[in-house]
Amino acid sequence: MKTNDKMEKVNLNEKLSLFSEHWSPKIVGELNGQLVKLAKFKDEFVWHKHEHEDEFFFVVEGVLKMELRDKTIVVNKNEFLIVPRGTEHRPVAEGEAWIMLFEPAATLNTGNTENELTRHELDKI
Amino acid sequence: MKTNDKMEKVNLNEKLSLFSEHWSPKIVGELNGQLVKLAKFKDEFVWHKHEHEDEFFFVVEGVLKMELRDKTIVVNKNEFLIVPRGTEHRPVAEGEAWIMLFEPAATLNTGNTENELTRHELDKI
Repeated sequence: MKTNDKMEKVNLNEKLSLFSEHWSPKIVGELNGQLVKLAKFKDEFVWHKHEHEDEFFFVVEGVLKMELRDKTIVVNKNEFLIVPRGTEHRPVAEGEAWIMLFEPAATLNTGNTENELTRHELDKI
Repeated sequence: MKTNDKMEKVNLNEKLSLFSEHWSPKIVGELNGQLVKLAKFKDEFVWHKHEHEDEFFFVVEGVLKMELRDKTIVVNKNEFLIVPRGTEHRPVAEGEAWIMLFEPAATLNTGNTENELTRHELDKI
């Protein structure tokens, strides 16, 4: 019989209490080549896009304003937004927003834009 | 410029108010060949496994008891559990539990077990 010793549930608030940096996603799960990440957003990120990856943003707490080139979508707690590949976007949070992300393992947070906010190695927590 | 007319946020509670059936997942999003689904669980499902797909269960409301062959994991609101491929499991909910699922588009709800609970065609809501 297959044992399930490594299977553990994940509590979002517990994981979110382990870090305070902004714009620095942490890996909290992996499935089917996709990663589940948690991040804290505050103020403005950079404009970027992902050529080959769609991105899922679920708001755990706070408000996420997703700026697109032609409109802004305001995403509240218990709502999610999928940003399709190739779409330029800039996440903005007034105050702090806690976000659960679901995206391919290969996704770089700043997409096609590399700068001081780029995170190549993400912590697993 | 790419227009983003089709991009819309999804409110979990709004979508969950649109249906009442149990064990009948609805598609609410798609990304990278994976589907985001919402479902209402009540009482016991069937023992099954998915040979090639890992499954993500996030509890939006209520309590999910995930029975495994060697233990049971109780998943509360704002917690998630990833059930790896090949793992026999049976979801159980005392009362009603509202669940957000991430899984590959190919995933059948009852996995390797086909019975009256099997849903081949899922509604998009």
